[in-house]
Amino acid sequence: MNFAVLASGNGSNLQAIINACRKGKVRAKLAAVISDRSQAFALERARKAKVPCVLPLDPKGFQDREDFDRRLVEILAENKVDFVVLAGFMRILSPYFIQSFRDRILNIHPALLPAFKGGHAIADALAYGVKVTGVTVHFVDEEVDHGPIILQEAVAIRPKDTAETLAFRIHKVEHRLYPAAIDLFARGKLRLAGRVVRIG
Amino acid sequence: MNFAVLASGNGSNLQAIINACRKGKVRAKLAAVISDRSQAFALERARKAKVPCVLPLDPKGFQDREDFDRRLVEILAENKVDFVVLAGFMRILSPYFIQSFRDRILNIHPALLPAFKGGHAIADALAYGVKVTGVTVHFVDEEVDHGPIILQEAVAIRPKDTAETLAFRIHKVEHRLYPAAIDLFARGKLRLAGRVVRIG
Repeated sequence: MNFAVLASGNGSNLQAIINACRKGKVRAKLAAVISDRSQAFALERARKAKVPCVLPLDPKGFQDREDFDRRLVEILAENKVDFVVLAGFMRILSPYFIQSFRDRILNIHPALLPAFKGGHAIADALAYGVKVTGVTVHFVDEEVDHGPIILQEAVAIRPKDTAETLAFRIHKVEHRLYPAAIDLFARGKLRLAGRVVRIG
Repeated sequence: MNFAVLASGNGSNLQAIINACRKGKVRAKLAAVISDRSQAFALERARKAKVPCVLPLDPKGFQDREDFDRRLVEILAENKVDFVVLAGFMRILSPYFIQSFRDRILNIHPALLPAFKGGHAIADALAYGVKVTGVTVHFVDEEVDHGPIILQEAVAIRPKDTAETLAFRIHKVEHRLYPAAIDLFARGKLRLAGRVVRIG
């Protein structure tokens, strides 16, 4: 199976995925890395890893979200991409895109969904005062941070945690959990039963 | 410190608390067990454990919720109760009661709050398809399942879990976590900083 990573930023999850591919822990081919930000360091990582298609795609060149997403789907089709992995991709995908890759888009979220949806999950969890948070890998559907959950792992909050120390431990879990989920998907080990993901 | 347990049902958490008191793991005195259901097995357990005040208190004998809660506060005062532990107590407490024991009422919930509030947390977590749920001990405030969180522990959901098998493992965690939280409170080890509970 071929997959693409969409990223907007530093790409540390992308790097973990690249490393896992090299080690044979992700049995799928990373065929494309696309970023909506031309300066994203993720593109640099992808070039260094010799990913076949490495592409900045500037939203300014498009009329609207769907116009952008139609071009994205074209590029993914040209590269024979079977499924899509979001890694710090800061754009909301249109229903058109989600329908085009129905149940074939994976995302990662730095909390135990459905708790702490949205863009500030780590800070929100600390402010709420939870003692346990974690990481969720899930399928993407039309609602933000809502689709069927593939893998989750808990991360205990420590008394002296700051957003930085907690983020460090959460990202460590992400870098292990995301490749594991991608490998499961690529090997056909995930089955949807309603919104419950059966593994194996 | 003296505490009371309010219970409506079987009282398995009450039993865990009684056992922990006996072993010296809860350094506080269980002074009263009160139930809104005269047939609650929790009362039987309390009598057997020779809790000084064991009392059924039938809501039918009272005009309204606050009338009931006023009598409850009187009984707790007569028994020199410093704090209150809810263990399967099926009544919503009035603002009057919560104000009377502000930051001195503990509750336990079979999920990782703020996820899966309400009376069907275990079934709701399974239906949502989470891979990790857990147990929360928290202070009670005016909103249901909302007050500051004292302790949480994660419970992984297994592929073949039913509501029954998952509940079994959650209850095992409850029976360990609740006595631990009560002991921390009784020894003055919990400090509130906004809605964050600092321990130690």
